[in-house]
Amino acid sequence: MIVILKQNPNEGQLENLVNWLKDKGLQIHRSEGLSHIILGLVGDTSKLDIDLISALDIVEDVKRVQEPYKNANRKFHPEDTVIPVGNTVIGGGTLTVMAGPCSVETEEQIITVAKAVKASGATILRGGAFKPRTSPYAFQGLGEKGIELLKLARKETGLPIVTEIMDASQLPLFEDVDVIQVGARNMQNFNLLKVLGKQKKPVMIKRGMSSSYEEWLMSAEYVMSEGNENVILCERGIRTFETYTRNTLDISAIPVLKQLTHLPVVIDPSHATGKAALVPPLALAAVAGGADGLLIEVHNDPANAWCDGPQSLRPEVFDALMKKILPVHEFLKEQEAEG
Amino acid sequence: MIVILKQNPNEGQLENLVNWLKDKGLQIHRSEGLSHIILGLVGDTSKLDIDLISALDIVEDVKRVQEPYKNANRKFHPEDTVIPVGNTVIGGGTLTVMAGPCSVETEEQIITVAKAVKASGATILRGGAFKPRTSPYAFQGLGEKGIELLKLARKETGLPIVTEIMDASQLPLFEDVDVIQVGARNMQNFNLLKVLGKQKKPVMIKRGMSSSYEEWLMSAEYVMSEGNENVILCERGIRTFETYTRNTLDISAIPVLKQLTHLPVVIDPSHATGKAALVPPLALAAVAGGADGLLIEVHNDPANAWCDGPQSLRPEVFDALMKKILPVHEFLKEQEAEG
Amino acid sequence: MIVILKQNPNEGQLENLVNWLKDKGLQIHRSEGLSHIILGLVGDTSKLDIDLISALDIVEDVKRVQEPYKNANRKFHPEDTVIPVGNTVIGGGTLTVMAGPCSVETEEQIITVAKAVKASGATILRGGAFKPRTSPYAFQGLGEKGIELLKLARKETGLPIVTEIMDASQLPLFEDVDVIQVGARNMQNFNLLKVLGKQKKPVMIKRGMSSSYEEWLMSAEYVMSEGNENVILCERGIRTFETYTRNTLDISAIPVLKQLTHLPVVIDPSHATGKAALVPPLALAAVAGGADGLLIEVHNDPANAWCDGPQSLRPEVFDALMKKILPVHEFLKEQEAEG
Amino acid sequence: MIVILKQNPNEGQLENLVNWLKDKGLQIHRSEGLSHIILGLVGDTSKLDIDLISALDIVEDVKRVQEPYKNANRKFHPEDTVIPVGNTVIGGGTLTVMAGPCSVETEEQIITVAKAVKASGATILRGGAFKPRTSPYAFQGLGEKGIELLKLARKETGLPIVTEIMDASQLPLFEDVDVIQVGARNMQNFNLLKVLGKQKKPVMIKRGMSSSYEEWLMSAEYVMSEGNENVILCERGIRTFETYTRNTLDISAIPVLKQLTHLPVVIDPSHATGKAALVPPLALAAVAGGADGLLIEVHNDPANAWCDGPQSLRPEVFDALMKKILPVHEFLKEQEAEG
Repeated sequence: MIVILKQNPNEGQLENLVNWLKDKGLQIHRSEGLSHIILGLVGDTSKLDIDLISALDIVEDVKRVQEPYKNANRKFHPEDTVIPVGNTVIGGGTLTVMAGPCSVETEEQIITVAKAVKASGATILRGGAFKPRTSPYAFQGLGEKGIELLKLARKETGLPIVTEIMDASQLPLFEDVDVIQVGARNMQNFNLLKVLGKQKKPVMIKRGMSSSYEEWLMSAEYVMSEGNENVILCERGIRTFETYTRNTLDISAIPVLKQLTHLPVVIDPSHATGKAALVPPLALAAVAGGADGLLIEVHNDPANAWCDGPQSLRPEVFDALMKKILPVHEFLKEQEAEG
Repeated sequence: MIVILKQNPNEGQLENLVNWLKDKGLQIHRSEGLSHIILGLVGDTSKLDIDLISALDIVEDVKRVQEPYKNANRKFHPEDTVIPVGNTVIGGGTLTVMAGPCSVETEEQIITVAKAVKASGATILRGGAFKPRTSPYAFQGLGEKGIELLKLARKETGLPIVTEIMDASQLPLFEDVDVIQVGARNMQNFNLLKVLGKQKKPVMIKRGMSSSYEEWLMSAEYVMSEGNENVILCERGIRTFETYTRNTLDISAIPVLKQLTHLPVVIDPSHATGKAALVPPLALAAVAGGADGLLIEVHNDPANAWCDGPQSLRPEVFDALMKKILPVHEFLKEQEAEG
Repeated sequence: MIVILKQNPNEGQLENLVNWLKDKGLQIHRSEGLSHIILGLVGDTSKLDIDLISALDIVEDVKRVQEPYKNANRKFHPEDTVIPVGNTVIGGGTLTVMAGPCSVETEEQIITVAKAVKASGATILRGGAFKPRTSPYAFQGLGEKGIELLKLARKETGLPIVTEIMDASQLPLFEDVDVIQVGARNMQNFNLLKVLGKQKKPVMIKRGMSSSYEEWLMSAEYVMSEGNENVILCERGIRTFETYTRNTLDISAIPVLKQLTHLPVVIDPSHATGKAALVPPLALAAVAGGADGLLIEVHNDPANAWCDGPQSLRPEVFDALMKKILPVHEFLKEQEAEG
Repeated sequence: MIVILKQNPNEGQLENLVNWLKDKGLQIHRSEGLSHIILGLVGDTSKLDIDLISALDIVEDVKRVQEPYKNANRKFHPEDTVIPVGNTVIGGGTLTVMAGPCSVETEEQIITVAKAVKASGATILRGGAFKPRTSPYAFQGLGEKGIELLKLARKETGLPIVTEIMDASQLPLFEDVDVIQVGARNMQNFNLLKVLGKQKKPVMIKRGMSSSYEEWLMSAEYVMSEGNENVILCERGIRTFETYTRNTLDISAIPVLKQLTHLPVVIDPSHATGKAALVPPLALAAVAGGADGLLIEVHNDPANAWCDGPQSLRPEVFDALMKKILPVHEFLKEQEAEG
């Protein structure tokens, strides 16, 4: 950590600061520039409160050199994390395709979709049971019933299931779920993260709508610091000035996270754009860009359903997409192996 | 609600849509433009799922005419909401100044600060007991002990207290708190909002870091739709590209919310900027701009404390600020009364 | 265009508005909802000033149904635009790779890089002669001399050249350039756009740092409305809250623009991220996502050069990237042809 | 400037870097942390290219300690800049109110408005002659004729005039204008800035829609480094995710710029919000927050004008606003003088 002092700092305050830092077990390197004194802090600064130091009268700025996360940091854990789920794994070169409807609606719906996505090559079934909705008047999901239907579909197809938890109190209902999803709005629900850190199921953390990479990794750190290392990161679009798409898919998250962390990175093009027509090109882009997986909404379309979700693919569109995605992934994996 | 159809829509699908909408009790006005057919939906559209309709193959765009919130809407409740708290009120022309430390630390600290801010004219004491922190390794607040210390300070000074809840399970500890604060990161923790709607204490909802006015009002609606009408909205800065300040204080929130809703609007210049030197001018701006209240961090500074929070004012700075704020508020209130 | 009136509008003002609109040759469809009167305007509304109408006392909101751009609109020009440049074309299924150094520095540099990128499969040589720099104290490019060196490199390799214009007064120097680039900071320099519309060379317009798709297409419209239809759109990252990358590459721009416009879409992963290590995965993502081309910084690295640009690839890295990109493009093009 | 090296840097490259920096006349302080070597550069680093150093293989990060602007920096020029304009001044405790119509339309219009705003206390007349419009089909202003009408209004009222330049080629037409405005879209039109730096009239630079404080000050630096020190900064709202207001007025710009620079800071609440009803509270907020001036749209409203601009105040509303603004400014100025 580097502390840049204001011009002509009060010497008494400076001494207090230096002594306080030394008490924390840090070594201090003092270096005088033309206009500023700079302190280099050597030692474990991960628990120093950067805001506290910034607040000092004599301090102009504080800059971190080391990342504030440890368990999630690739520097301390160079190998990719590979997470076993059912009879498949997430991470380590595998392409995990999680597909299914936005909300679980009926037994017929979920089983039809599960069979269809499995046939096209999906490896995990997704489906919402508890749905976070902006409006208190909107449908909030089937809840416990939805989880039961997902389990039925798993039994029928063998696909492991992933579904979203909204509150720590719901945890008992997730006992037989394969991957627990934390939604974007709960990315900094620290109580929930701690509770999920104390159990062992894989946790997939969606990026908050306006969360930085570092904040996102700190949320992973909340889970990991409690003992659960099975964390998956899911980019689902960030909020920007552009309103044509619901969010802006931050495709750079893939290579950036691959550098910063060893955790698997999954892309959700459905929520990112809110428009089904944009999903196939973005799914292809994500796979070519190195994602470990995709989270894609697929909805069946029986004669009587008058509409599907705006961001959901029909099974046949999903199938055509998979026929492009799998060879691209295969080709790039081979290139990687050769190169 | 207005539904704009794509060019040359499939007539069968259009008929399905129109029938489905009529089944919901809506009247449909069809109007044909040069290139597009437009449907005007007349009736109660507040429970229609706009995403569902947008998703239809034949639909190009859907535009809402009515706001999706009702309880929080000034159109249906033209009078300002005035919320009694202890022996004061929030809203309705009163200026509520909530001041106190970021975190409650010790009995001496909280009582000293409480006395100081009261002497300067603050009407409510704020202080954090449960602290949401980005890092799992940072100090997370005194918890229950912190709430006890706040109550002691209330007993000593008579100031009502406001403090943040982080999880529905903490509610029993807030039984004797005067105003319950929901932090920005929990603005869309819908389970928490519902629980707070089922009790009667005033709830102050901070705006999410990247939440629109409408999403914020929908969060108020979550609380109000459960029966608790005592909601206060607190703007604390939004996330933008500018990084010099921690967040960007959206001062326009004041007049915008005054139009859209009858709920009181409070400004938190301390969290918005993260820099104590910016707090006084922004607090003055907020009051001149029509805010119903301020949330300001004030920290005492005894000889042995080597630093205060970067965004906290010293009591003497707070006192000087109040000497400017109160006359400006008084002058503008008189002008309002005359004009 | 749809005009939503405030509740209980003044009848005299409403009549004035309706008459004024009729004078513009529009038909007015009036439709009364429960709370609002809505006017549907039928006819050519592309020249109506939406801000002017929004400003009326009796108007609550105005919503456009038709896009405000015509020449750039795919609805009126369904076929892809294909732009001939030298002995190649941009658009229409071709993958155009424009590669070269950020700034032209010396004859040796530009010729070395030009030969290298050509050997790897690039089809156009890029290089900056006039450089927009945030600081007046930074190197501003070789100017006219830089353009001469680019022409030399073209003579040597046969590659057409693309370079940036900063001011209409520089146009005579661009007489022998193949593609004229308009930088992000000049995307709304309307005088420059008009001047470029009056000549015939292809114009590549980079997206402004915080410009919406619609504003970007309106800038294309400025050029096209003056008679020059050879416009290329280049996405180079938008400004968001995330600061780890210099900008956030908006990969969704590819499929969105493919729907809205017939103009070719090129991706610049180098400027978007500012980090060379992120360029290969993002270039691959762009190609898989359907981009018509790439703009990539490549810098040679002779023994004496102590550093290269932070976002520039070395020729060997570019070569390895091209060996992945070309087969992916080929494979997806075949799929497209089959599907 | 501080250079943070990657772990275990190549010693040869490190030596090259250190020698290269020493050749630039800098002293290097090397300090070794647990995981990283840090170089502190002492000397004039204002002309070092930070991107160039960041690009080095061995460099992890580079952090600036000194601001990259000098002429605009309060550290080197502690006194407020006060700019004489006609018989008034901008800056130094004066409140400058620039008011007038968005576009100059007719002689009668501009003279009527000029007289009205003067009577209410405005000190400068604003009006657009050249109008940057997103659409090539929208009215682009009266041009030269508009400037002539502004001069007439000045003759009639004595108010100095401010109007926008869009291209360096228009400069001769601005010979008799009092303050030249650079619009937000041209904030980084560096050629224009340099040309304006070579003449002596005051230049008011509006903040780019998504420009940081530092970039904005660098644009001021472009003008100042050419010799023209009379620069005024005008905040007019930044682009954020919130779309209810046209832009988000960044009120914090006032106290931030007051710290960073000695140049006057003006607020434009009309363009920031795009809604007339929001202008009065935001104008009051700006004055209470310490702005040196306001830029406000005022439009006359004769019987035959069927509408005014959505963000323009009527003269009587402007007059009522001035009756609040002037006493608030006076009161706070007195407090400043006492405190």
